Amino acid sequence: MNGFASDNSAGVHPEVLEAISRANQGHAIAYGEDEWTARAGELFRRHFGPQARAYPVFNGSAANVLSLAATCEPWQAAICAAEAHLNVDECGAPERIAGVKLIAVHAEHGKLDPAAVRARIERIGDQHAVQPRLVSISQASELGTVYRPEEVRALAELAHEHDLLLHVDGARLANAAAFLETTLGALTVEAGVDVLSFGGTKNGLLLGEAVVFLRAGLGEDFAFVRKQLGQLASKMRFLSAQLEALLDRDLWLRNATHANSMARRLADAIGDLEGLEIVHPVESNAVFAALPQPAIERLSEALPGEHPFYVWDAERGVVRLMCSWDTPPEDVERLVSALRDALAAER
Amino acid sequence: MNGFASDNSAGVHPEVLEAISRANQGHAIAYGEDEWTARAGELFRRHFGPQARAYPVFNGSAANVLSLAATCEPWQAAICAAEAHLNVDECGAPERIAGVKLIAVHAEHGKLDPAAVRARIERIGDQHAVQPRLVSISQASELGTVYRPEEVRALAELAHEHDLLLHVDGARLANAAAFLETTLGALTVEAGVDVLSFGGTKNGLLLGEAVVFLRAGLGEDFAFVRKQLGQLASKMRFLSAQLEALLDRDLWLRNATHANSMARRLADAIGDLEGLEIVHPVESNAVFAALPQPAIERLSEALPGEHPFYVWDAERGVVRLMCSWDTPPEDVERLVSALRDALAAER
Amino acid sequence: MNGFASDNSAGVHPEVLEAISRANQGHAIAYGEDEWTARAGELFRRHFGPQARAYPVFNGSAANVLSLAATCEPWQAAICAAEAHLNVDECGAPERIAGVKLIAVHAEHGKLDPAAVRARIERIGDQHAVQPRLVSISQASELGTVYRPEEVRALAELAHEHDLLLHVDGARLANAAAFLETTLGALTVEAGVDVLSFGGTKNGLLLGEAVVFLRAGLGEDFAFVRKQLGQLASKMRFLSAQLEALLDRDLWLRNATHANSMARRLADAIGDLEGLEIVHPVESNAVFAALPQPAIERLSEALPGEHPFYVWDAERGVVRLMCSWDTPPEDVERLVSALRDALAAER
Amino acid sequence: MNGFASDNSAGVHPEVLEAISRANQGHAIAYGEDEWTARAGELFRRHFGPQARAYPVFNGSAANVLSLAATCEPWQAAICAAEAHLNVDECGAPERIAGVKLIAVHAEHGKLDPAAVRARIERIGDQHAVQPRLVSISQASELGTVYRPEEVRALAELAHEHDLLLHVDGARLANAAAFLETTLGALTVEAGVDVLSFGGTKNGLLLGEAVVFLRAGLGEDFAFVRKQLGQLASKMRFLSAQLEALLDRDLWLRNATHANSMARRLADAIGDLEGLEIVHPVESNAVFAALPQPAIERLSEALPGEHPFYVWDAERGVVRLMCSWDTPPEDVERLVSALRDALAAER
Repeated sequence: MNGFASDNSAGVHPEVLEAISRANQGHAIAYGEDEWTARAGELFRRHFGPQARAYPVFNGSAANVLSLAATCEPWQAAICAAEAHLNVDECGAPERIAGVKLIAVHAEHGKLDPAAVRARIERIGDQHAVQPRLVSISQASELGTVYRPEEVRALAELAHEHDLLLHVDGARLANAAAFLETTLGALTVEAGVDVLSFGGTKNGLLLGEAVVFLRAGLGEDFAFVRKQLGQLASKMRFLSAQLEALLDRDLWLRNATHANSMARRLADAIGDLEGLEIVHPVESNAVFAALPQPAIERLSEALPGEHPFYVWDAERGVVRLMCSWDTPPEDVERLVSALRDALAAER
Repeated sequence: MNGFASDNSAGVHPEVLEAISRANQGHAIAYGEDEWTARAGELFRRHFGPQARAYPVFNGSAANVLSLAATCEPWQAAICAAEAHLNVDECGAPERIAGVKLIAVHAEHGKLDPAAVRARIERIGDQHAVQPRLVSISQASELGTVYRPEEVRALAELAHEHDLLLHVDGARLANAAAFLETTLGALTVEAGVDVLSFGGTKNGLLLGEAVVFLRAGLGEDFAFVRKQLGQLASKMRFLSAQLEALLDRDLWLRNATHANSMARRLADAIGDLEGLEIVHPVESNAVFAALPQPAIERLSEALPGEHPFYVWDAERGVVRLMCSWDTPPEDVERLVSALRDALAAER
Repeated sequence: MNGFASDNSAGVHPEVLEAISRANQGHAIAYGEDEWTARAGELFRRHFGPQARAYPVFNGSAANVLSLAATCEPWQAAICAAEAHLNVDECGAPERIAGVKLIAVHAEHGKLDPAAVRARIERIGDQHAVQPRLVSISQASELGTVYRPEEVRALAELAHEHDLLLHVDGARLANAAAFLETTLGALTVEAGVDVLSFGGTKNGLLLGEAVVFLRAGLGEDFAFVRKQLGQLASKMRFLSAQLEALLDRDLWLRNATHANSMARRLADAIGDLEGLEIVHPVESNAVFAALPQPAIERLSEALPGEHPFYVWDAERGVVRLMCSWDTPPEDVERLVSALRDALAAER
Repeated sequence: MNGFASDNSAGVHPEVLEAISRANQGHAIAYGEDEWTARAGELFRRHFGPQARAYPVFNGSAANVLSLAATCEPWQAAICAAEAHLNVDECGAPERIAGVKLIAVHAEHGKLDPAAVRARIERIGDQHAVQPRLVSISQASELGTVYRPEEVRALAELAHEHDLLLHVDGARLANAAAFLETTLGALTVEAGVDVLSFGGTKNGLLLGEAVVFLRAGLGEDFAFVRKQLGQLASKMRFLSAQLEALLDRDLWLRNATHANSMARRLADAIGDLEGLEIVHPVESNAVFAALPQPAIERLSEALPGEHPFYVWDAERGVVRLMCSWDTPPEDVERLVSALRDALAAER
């Protein structure tokens, strides 16, 4: 049984591993001038429009931080959800590396509210205050919820109205698109998004994300930013080949759809259990459930592995149950059954 | 034919790819708490002594910059060869990321001379001047030469005498050890080295290097440095499995020995050619040769591929011919033959 | 009439100007080796104990940011009030310059509550999260309130218990000490404070603050930090002579006492006015008053000068009325009278 | 006797002190919206043309570093003389604060040679290498020499041809203009200079320099840069009043002319002494002289004060004898006489 700790705990999809093997033929020019990177670039343009420029990087933290470094001056600020990975799980990298202060706004269910954003676009021109330059949202959010295209558009319009940019932390963009049954482009470039951290690792890659500039005039010197910030892969063909495998046909969608459907199945099976409450809408591959502390402990003991799930909020008794591209239905069943037992013992 | 542009152009050694495949079983805890990373750590201790602590990172630039960030204050400086990768090929990352000024010293054949280093350990305590904290050498050097253990020791003693550290950029450490027929430990920890950028990518990995602290009391908070600087892999087992494959038995040595022997073979075959001069001792996997400009052009046209080798110094007509773990003897023969023709046409 | 916009709008106290003139005799060694700086250092030791080491800097922003840079690693964090100058009025300098993320906590009347601080000392050892290293309080606070010695001590004990430091932004430390009728030392070093930004500019200097390390083992390389961050005065005698004038006898206390008493007088005179509410305890030289928006406008028009006071919170109709070392009682009377009129017109 | 250690050892010119006193009337808006700053701005436009925008800062290090921070991206580089203050006396601030790598070029007599600059404008577009963005010269140079207007123009043209900027570290710009008997504008904006660090402290101010953007389109967000980097004076009128005193009539010229003439007098008096060699052309207020080591020691003992002059290069026996706006002729005579004695004892 695989556990529900994180989609980062999952392995590499076989088609991705095969793509790596296929790319391992002879020599290729290093640092991005290879044919795999050219093809991956072409695929990003297919999904995100002809003006899209994609730069593979190693991981999601870097994709986020480099997105900021490429678009903000150090005296500017980014508005994001207090709960955003950017704010709480990058060990201060946006501040240290990009020099950019984060203006963190509480976001119900992890989704930024335009009114709350608007309230923080303030003190424009006041030399004592950082100047907002970018709004960053996570799609899907860290709490498993998904912005509808019109919600993205509303934030984009608000941002642009004030000469700000809209950035999407898309570590799980595929899950959002799968949930909404829409395209990657409809959720981003067509909704007004300017810069995207495109996620691959959580969706079946060995490693590999991309910073994608969706609008002309942005990130024009990004090659230097990426190199200087330590994210230029020498044997880049092996990152690009993975991204190609994900985007060329429908692997991105198959993986995300599967992970989402396992979360849906899980939520459906436990939603009515007495003593358990699902605390956020289940719209991607995560289920957040509140249950009594002793039940959490029993569940933890009942499941195999050191770390079968995350206690997200110890005080409120909320656990995160994360499904992956490789979560088998049987594992969901076992989890449901263990949950049932853990809760039953409560009574 | 593979070309001689760079050991970064080479692919992944089959045993490494196999290790990746083997690691792709089920789930593993993310961010380094997995068993592969534990085993890789154990292997680093086997090679570098029980006090060694190794942290996998994505690439060599990061290994170097993080080594500095972890050991220097921003008002300190690192002394290195003017020709060092650190100085000329990191796009200013040491300065921007670690805040550390480089004191670049000309180094004959790429090897730092202790007397030249000593002359730059100056203005100690003067608040107007950066304070030297670290000496960094590349082993093997960027010019294909190798420091003998006693040369490393002399630099380490000089450094320690002034309360400085000795860092080794070991992107090609395996090649140096293979050339000297010694162990990785003898060239580093036993010779007084404090911090090491251990290279894997150029020696047959898909990607993967490690920052290795060789002395207690150094890098104790490195986990935070690595995370903040964007080098913490989520699915770390796939980096660690590669390092394990390299270090567990003798793959590191086989690969490096092969690359070195191809360079030796090349140097032996062309060393006496009229009109060509080998300008640096051939001690690892690179051959630097000076030849007339028209011969360079003819050679470039005669060889397949867009970029069959680097023109290292256009003014002096020096080319770099780099061999890899996968360079076949036949490619060397073809290169020798093409070189012969290119030079013959000169007369 | 001088206005109540800011204690930064005030000029230089005549005794300070005289001290500058007296220091202007012949040559003096630059960069701090002069006799004035030696005497100022001695005076800081007299006030803050024999272990205190004071470093003059140009301004308060720098004193704060350098305090952080000298005591925190870039992956560490500082806990402060959301309302703190550090958080809202340094244009992101703590983040950009020290690399330090601020953990901003709402603070009633501008004073940090130990329970709120304790709640944010979390995720210790988690590499994904910045690690709290320092608690910063403003004394007097930006809202004119003052921490009692036992409140400072409670925060210091909390901080030390978790291996954190306590920093005081003392731009108005003199006002706090004057209000409490205690010594500078009793409010800081004796209450457990580790690092202090000592303010001079707002208390009658032309310019000049100091970073004061109150505990051995802190800031030992601060000379380099100060120089690198652009805060080393070449003709330092003229900064030190001012600090000497402030601290040698009782000028610091006279100035602060006067400013406080003017604020007290103002508060007493307007506290009972109908339609006006004093929204924070008046414990130093500022009065924060809520009044109807039209009254604010009338007041603004009635007073001379472009900018006679700050509208602190436009939404809630709160104005800040700041007294200075040079505020004459007649100006307070005129303000009271103008306020009375502005409110009367309301009815 | 004042000594010849540094023009930073000199005091404040009486007219400057008087200007400070005059500015000390009542309140003034803080942070630069005051009338003195407006007038100083007007004076900079008078000297440097209507497009000049001047921003007072505290010291010369900051003026230099902020000039770079405002005009360079962190992956860009500045080309300067190896001997430049920027390179050797800023404790690594350009690298840490602006993130900008310095490309240091040996400069005969402290003056950059266009051919040497041109050779380092290289690897344009290569993502592995920092990209030159700015050439920085010191006028007068740290070795007391002066660029002629046509030399400045040649460097400006070279810079502009490659889309680089020309920056002047003008800590002693007044001395250069006085030597050349030309205007401040002729030496800068009219010769193609883009950004200027205008020096006041060494020329008779208490403290105060300015970053001056000489071309439209540069430094448009500089107010934020200055604030964030800790160089925004709250009581700015007192910086501006000094700059006004310097620039309004001819104080800048009188002070510089006097200092230069004292250096000239000194050079003329010692130029023919046996055993002494003047090693750089004397074109501003410094004399660099080589003399035997024992003579240096005798001279040092013979002169009053702890630190009567700098030993610039201990190995070559070069001392720096620096004259100031307040150096009296009698002090020059005493120095000449002491030098004579010190050298005589040699024989």
